Amino acid sequence: MADAVTPPRGMRDFLPADKARRERVLAIIRDVYRRHGFDEIETPVLEDSARLHAGLGGDNEKLAFAVMKRGLSVTDLHAAAEPLELADLGLRFDLTVPLARYYATHRAELPSVFRAIQIAPVWRAERPQKGRYRQFVQCDIDIVGESSIRAEAELVLASLDALDELGLSDAIVRVNDRRLLFGMLTDFGFAPEDFDAVLITIDKLDKLGPEGVVAELGERTGSAAAIEAFRAFLMRPQTREYLPYSERAIRTALPEGADPDVVAELVALGTAVAAGRGSGAEVPLRFDPFLVRGMGYYTGPIFEVAHPSVPYSLGGGGRYDGMIGRFLGDDVPATGFSLGFERLVDLVDVPDESGADAVALLHDADAPLAELLALKAAVLATGSRVRLAPRIRNTKRQLDELAAEGFTRFAMVGTEALADPTTLELRPLA
Amino acid sequence: MADAVTPPRGMRDFLPADKARRERVLAIIRDVYRRHGFDEIETPVLEDSARLHAGLGGDNEKLAFAVMKRGLSVTDLHAAAEPLELADLGLRFDLTVPLARYYATHRAELPSVFRAIQIAPVWRAERPQKGRYRQFVQCDIDIVGESSIRAEAELVLASLDALDELGLSDAIVRVNDRRLLFGMLTDFGFAPEDFDAVLITIDKLDKLGPEGVVAELGERTGSAAAIEAFRAFLMRPQTREYLPYSERAIRTALPEGADPDVVAELVALGTAVAAGRGSGAEVPLRFDPFLVRGMGYYTGPIFEVAHPSVPYSLGGGGRYDGMIGRFLGDDVPATGFSLGFERLVDLVDVPDESGADAVALLHDADAPLAELLALKAAVLATGSRVRLAPRIRNTKRQLDELAAEGFTRFAMVGTEALADPTTLELRPLA
Repeated sequence: MADAVTPPRGMRDFLPADKARRERVLAIIRDVYRRHGFDEIETPVLEDSARLHAGLGGDNEKLAFAVMKRGLSVTDLHAAAEPLELADLGLRFDLTVPLARYYATHRAELPSVFRAIQIAPVWRAERPQKGRYRQFVQCDIDIVGESSIRAEAELVLASLDALDELGLSDAIVRVNDRRLLFGMLTDFGFAPEDFDAVLITIDKLDKLGPEGVVAELGERTGSAAAIEAFRAFLMRPQTREYLPYSERAIRTALPEGADPDVVAELVALGTAVAAGRGSGAEVPLRFDPFLVRGMGYYTGPIFEVAHPSVPYSLGGGGRYDGMIGRFLGDDVPATGFSLGFERLVDLVDVPDESGADAVALLHDADAPLAELLALKAAVLATGSRVRLAPRIRNTKRQLDELAAEGFTRFAMVGTEALADPTTLELRPLA
Repeated sequence: MADAVTPPRGMRDFLPADKARRERVLAIIRDVYRRHGFDEIETPVLEDSARLHAGLGGDNEKLAFAVMKRGLSVTDLHAAAEPLELADLGLRFDLTVPLARYYATHRAELPSVFRAIQIAPVWRAERPQKGRYRQFVQCDIDIVGESSIRAEAELVLASLDALDELGLSDAIVRVNDRRLLFGMLTDFGFAPEDFDAVLITIDKLDKLGPEGVVAELGERTGSAAAIEAFRAFLMRPQTREYLPYSERAIRTALPEGADPDVVAELVALGTAVAAGRGSGAEVPLRFDPFLVRGMGYYTGPIFEVAHPSVPYSLGGGGRYDGMIGRFLGDDVPATGFSLGFERLVDLVDVPDESGADAVALLHDADAPLAELLALKAAVLATGSRVRLAPRIRNTKRQLDELAAEGFTRFAMVGTEALADPTTLELRPLA
């Protein structure tokens, strides 16, 4: 077969060293989240198609991979009015919709305030490009059943702690609140039915700049007066100053008349995060009145993680109080925070510090098998990792490769050690 | 929504305790395999549809979940001559086809003898029934690039060691060789084109018994003389004696004229496994001339793990030398061994022995947030796991639930501890 043999487009294999590195980073994140009181769960990678396409996934629904019904006949194909009619399942595009479904399924078996860890792959049929994959891992924590800002404070503290442990202690969490966004748009005079479109445009502020956003709003919505009110606010010198997180910073960044209860909540969040981080530390939060977050299901505080070393966000989340009710028929408050693992793993360096001894036994191709395996067993019994390796001509290359793979000692297995494993001489690998 | 909200048919969610238990079992298996010199890899859950349906997966190909092409039009649906035309990807039904594809993709970056661990889910649209799931985890080890029985010996020893560590030290590996099966069928006079059908019937020996197998062969193949030769062999008193593994046992169980080179290899395997297990131990192998293994790709020694406590197999594997050549155009020897994780995890008891301290802080619903989080941070800083838990009316029930979840200590958080974390009094949880 002359074709290049590759994984499917936009998806990746992991070589042993990459796999080990990824697992080390995941183990650190998992451990921090566990220590903060969260519990890991697992759901199937597939969900019922109707649930994935219930309008909760926003644009991601369009990127879902659809799984065909089994046993379809040609008649079924020809009778179909649209492709999704032929699908009954789909690969999850995020971990939030599955969590909402999971909570609806298992509520009676879960604590009243449920703190979930989900570390798992999701799939999106994105146009492949650098740094975008069609299968990628998300690290989510969610708190279900807690309506107060206590949930947000715990999520932010756990996420910052995980980033600290990964060596990314300069991370900043941008904060806003959907209720403030909606209030602002209402005050400016936008019609509620235009909110989604307006927010999609505001979300591009970093990319388009203020003028670009105002221009795009002009193309998209009919209300010139509302756009002008928004423009005037956006151009105020103090609007985008990003002061150190405080009540003053939040009030300065917002138009007059912003909901004082919401502001008070965000102020309390800052105080709580500062307390959780220790008294000396600066609050690693920044209020951003134009932070939008893509998903339509957010209802309260929203977050995005920034780090000085990269121009993109490392994660984010927010409160989605209405969502579980969609599955359960009974509203349950919920808020979540997701770290973008694929971006993190490229950014951090987590050396293997297990310190485990690993022994390579270089042997002749025709070494007697029973003796060779008895020797391997003898070294295994000492607690070491052991690999049998038929000697190749280029010994230096072989030893270099074994060292690169993490082997720490080796032996050239001769007849003496094969006859009596206690005579084996192990030498250090550079 | 009044409908029951459940995961898709045949698929499962895992509650925190189940998830933790599964991960503990997987960690043990992974650790044993690593110590035996294997390296973990990962492939995407999806493979190109054409590769999954290349004839290597046997009956499992029919059970593959197919993923629809994106952007299909209604015209595409109506022009399709069969459902698979509309699919370009599929969920893997095993880990062997993806490994063969992976090796073909990455051969230049892998050691000449490559020992792979794959611990990952696979998907099959099985008819749901007790103990059969549509998403389930397999634990595979494979050795690629080693044509000698050294590979089989290492796989068997690593698998038995993993089972030992899980407390299943009475496991027995049933052994046969595809070459002996083919030789036997040839000698009896079956036509090569009938071999697959004959083997499918022989594979039912445990279920149908000797008479049942002979009767089914009579319905399936035309050669009365071959069936009679097989019947006569099957009815010999010594054919199914299952003597302790030895050259004599293998020779006794086989018809006259069995390939002496293959017999010698299987004898050497027994000697090697005995040496690897330690001199005093009985060889945990049993030669079974009627072991077939379902997959058509096997070319040499084949295995199945039996355990006295259960009537079903716990895993199995074999040599599949021709398979990688199908992707690479260049034959590479390979052999693999798969443990059926879902069956194992139901069978073994692996208590949590991390011994980690876990503290529950029971607080009033209106406890001041900043102080509460400073208190949590103070306990986290001691290295403990910490969970905040709003106090409920039934304290006994709450403490029982926390203890069941693995929490080891608790405190009733009062104003004193909130003002000064050093005054917190932790009490043991029963």
